[in-house]
Amino acid sequence: MKLVTAVVQQTRVDEVRQSLTALGVRGMTIADVQGYGRQQGHTEIYRGAEYKVDVVDKTRVEVLVNDVDADEVLRAIVSAARSGRVGDGKVWVTPVESVVRVRTGETGEQAI
Amino acid sequence: MKLVTAVVQQTRVDEVRQSLTALGVRGMTIADVQGYGRQQGHTEIYRGAEYKVDVVDKTRVEVLVNDVDADEVLRAIVSAARSGRVGDGKVWVTPVESVVRVRTGETGEQAI
Amino acid sequence: MKLVTAVVQQTRVDEVRQSLTALGVRGMTIADVQGYGRQQGHTEIYRGAEYKVDVVDKTRVEVLVNDVDADEVLRAIVSAARSGRVGDGKVWVTPVESVVRVRTGETGEQAI
Ligand SMILES: Nc1ncnc2c1ncn2[C@@H]1O[C@H](COP(=O)(O)OP(=O)(O)OP(=O)(O)O)[C@@H](O)[C@H]1O
Ligand SMILES: Nc1ncnc2c1ncn2[C@@H]1O[C@H](COP(=O)(O)OP(=O)(O)OP(=O)(O)O)[C@@H](O)[C@H]1O
Ligand SMILES: Nc1ncnc2c1ncn2[C@@H]1O[C@H](COP(=O)(O)OP(=O)(O)OP(=O)(O)O)[C@@H](O)[C@H]1O
Ligand SMILES: [Mg+2]
Ligand SMILES: [Mg+2]
Ligand SMILES: [Mg+2]
Repeated sequence: MKLVTAVVQQTRVDEVRQSLTALGVRGMTIADVQGYGRQQGHTEIYRGAEYKVDVVDKTRVEVLVNDVDADEVLRAIVSAARSGRVGDGKVWVTPVESVVRVRTGETGEQAI
Repeated sequence: MKLVTAVVQQTRVDEVRQSLTALGVRGMTIADVQGYGRQQGHTEIYRGAEYKVDVVDKTRVEVLVNDVDADEVLRAIVSAARSGRVGDGKVWVTPVESVVRVRTGETGEQAI
Repeated sequence: MKLVTAVVQQTRVDEVRQSLTALGVRGMTIADVQGYGRQQGHTEIYRGAEYKVDVVDKTRVEVLVNDVDADEVLRAIVSAARSGRVGDGKVWVTPVESVVRVRTGETGEQAI
């Protein structure tokens, strides 16, 4: 199994979810995070004044998938999360050695 | 080393902690997350009206463990987190290449 | 690629960021977490009374890095996060199989 993790714009989470559902993905975990990338945070106009914003609010999305689905899920997230502006995010894939569904005790690909 | 990650019901975190302590596990990190599984979120009665709840509040639990302890810790979390109802959660295991205790600089299994 | 994850004192996040910037690291994700280590949470004086605090607020820091940078980034975080007191935190390294920059579709080390 794999874990596909994405840090995306908060405004793109619904698109990401819909594109995963369209692929048949049936679970997801999200959390509030903050971060910066190559622009080191950004400068915003707020109430007429310019403020340096050091970190930007983002949403982390995590999806446990079977090996064969990892690439497709990665691409679907990238596509759904893209607005074309800086700060659209990162997606990465990490290995998972075992998974268990708590209620039933099912393991491995059955548990996803 | 391994990282055992669980997304569990908020109401089961104390049971999880106690079962880990009983095993001799001496550290844990938790965070608020939201998610859905095969039921795609659920329908709840709230103030007499039926609302579609798209994501459900959960707690993520992470435990760094030595290789030999990973299976036992996984099983302890599954057992402590189980209420028998849908939404009880997922537990998974991922590889960890190195660990350092910040205060002392100890590394590897000494750092856990 | 690697993911360097740290759970550190909230008061050390700025030092961690500065030391990473000095190394040329150009991105980071942070999140609020809670946890305990070998002291099982700690005892604090609050408004004159002694309270048992079971979990302590910490910040999780995550940094995607190229393989060759992982050790240096790990050491920089450990050094910047260290106050010398218990609870200074843990840092660990996990393998990452692929990374994509959402806006451009760049992959691998180009995406970091
Ligand atoms: N190297 C990194 N390590 C960890 N998290 C990162 C890293 N780079 C970016 N992130 C996370 O992803 C979020 C979005 O990053 P962002 O899309 O700005 O990346 P970028 O490389 O600057 O690309 P772009 O030029 O399109 O803005 C950041 O706010 C941060 O949370
Ligand atoms: N494939 C997945 N990827 C990432 N997180 C998931 C996945 N499936 C479930 N989760 C997380 O685990 C939480 C609990 O999932 P849940 O226990 O409902 O799984 P399930 O497979 O639907 O099992 P059950 O039939 O027992 O409800 C979700 O709210 C979500 O945060
Ligand atoms: N085994 C572990 N698994 C997951 N998270 C851990 C573990 N140990 C510690 N942590 C996280 O790191 C934070 C800081 O831990 P801490 O620095 O107290 O570790 P420690 O081993 O007790 O070292 P020290 O003796 O220096 O306090 C904890 O609050 C928790 O969030
Ligand atoms: Mg950017
Ligand atoms: Mg479910
Ligand atoms: Mg401690």
